[in-house]
Amino acid sequence: MTWETRVVVREGVPSPDEVAVEEPLEIRVEGRALAVTLRTPGHDEELALGFLASEGVIEDRTDLAGLASVAANVVDCRLAAGVEAHRARLQRAERAVVASSACGLCGKTSLEAVRVRAPGPAVCVPLDHTVLSALPARLAAAQEGFRRTGGLHGAALLDGSGSLVVVREDVGRHNAVDKVLGWRMNHAADVAFALLVSSRAGFEIVQKARVAGLGTVVAVGAASTLAVDLAREEGMELLGFLRADGVNRYV
Amino acid sequence: MTWETRVVVREGVPSPDEVAVEEPLEIRVEGRALAVTLRTPGHDEELALGFLASEGVIEDRTDLAGLASVAANVVDCRLAAGVEAHRARLQRAERAVVASSACGLCGKTSLEAVRVRAPGPAVCVPLDHTVLSALPARLAAAQEGFRRTGGLHGAALLDGSGSLVVVREDVGRHNAVDKVLGWRMNHAADVAFALLVSSRAGFEIVQKARVAGLGTVVAVGAASTLAVDLAREEGMELLGFLRADGVNRYV
Repeated sequence: MTWETRVVVREGVPSPDEVAVEEPLEIRVEGRALAVTLRTPGHDEELALGFLASEGVIEDRTDLAGLASVAANVVDCRLAAGVEAHRARLQRAERAVVASSACGLCGKTSLEAVRVRAPGPAVCVPLDHTVLSALPARLAAAQEGFRRTGGLHGAALLDGSGSLVVVREDVGRHNAVDKVLGWRMNHAADVAFALLVSSRAGFEIVQKARVAGLGTVVAVGAASTLAVDLAREEGMELLGFLRADGVNRYV
Repeated sequence: MTWETRVVVREGVPSPDEVAVEEPLEIRVEGRALAVTLRTPGHDEELALGFLASEGVIEDRTDLAGLASVAANVVDCRLAAGVEAHRARLQRAERAVVASSACGLCGKTSLEAVRVRAPGPAVCVPLDHTVLSALPARLAAAQEGFRRTGGLHGAALLDGSGSLVVVREDVGRHNAVDKVLGWRMNHAADVAFALLVSSRAGFEIVQKARVAGLGTVVAVGAASTLAVDLAREEGMELLGFLRADGVNRYV
């Protein structure tokens, strides 16, 4: 469930209220816990897939022999035989990588380690003014969970015409992004998309896009300095404060 | 610096824009990296102090022999001699605890481990209707960084009259909370306050308050199911969607 009904009291009057669901998901690799992320249930395999790729444990779907929910709130994945490079990365990740409701950079115990190596180039998807101005209404229409709860972030993959190819919602910004990136790995791994987020674009959001090879990131919220710097270094397009009447392009 | 001026292009026109600063802070314990959090520089020692307490590594200021910035973006702390219980906790934490721009639960590699034990009871600070209705304007007035950048979360400690005793801003929600909790450990460790956040109240925000012994949490944004459940189990007061004309009390 994406939301549950709870009781809130407002000026002394109790009433039902739809509240965003937050539960821990344990992501295991070959039976060993790698991370626990506080997420909104649903699309857990996509979340795990996107997370493993964002963290550099795998590069694509073929690096996995299997990925499945093995218990309530537990996803386990098996690496393909012979993926020794990834096993080495996994060992490094196991020492430290983790996740929570609102993070995607966990467990890096040195300043350099916040950077994850991207396996390929970043491809930009140009979005013209007309396309951009239509996006806020499209995203809002697709965020049913946010309309009901006010407590969910949204992420979407866009094609060049501004169609929302896939939309996911989550209590964690980075989880919503991992879910759409995981969907892409399953369904459209070689297709260039732009990443749209309902939230702010911090470093870890831009880095997730970069690792996935997505060169265009559009945020409804603000960008941070580290996100702007990363986008510039990597030749990415970063847009923030998306509104129907305009958007900021960080240069 | 809390913000830096960057260039944004809007409808083809470049202009200066104030962008929230995000930089990694490495938190070391006795020279060993425990976590890297993506934070807004400033009040780094408070952030480290609040983080160490929130994660259960220390209980109070006396558990530390020292805490200081030792290099750019690096804080190191030394544990007081004889704090063997905390050393054991630290070893556990070192295996996993980490942090990022938007998380406070990192590194727990089992579902049970998302819970941190609180060393004492939680004390509620009743806030009446008049006090609550004044808070949005007070918090907004105190959030200079948010006004300038649109990209910073705020956290504050309130007394029973609704005065904002301390306010901190950060690109990470949990960092802003750790900063005010660290300030309290330095200046008013035994004083009961309510915690006010400009953001949503997820599990990790409510847990940070609980571990610090603060029983009242007020959020401008939504609460999650796990946050509501934790607050109920712990006898805390959790309020969300704070506005001048009302607030939701989760029961």
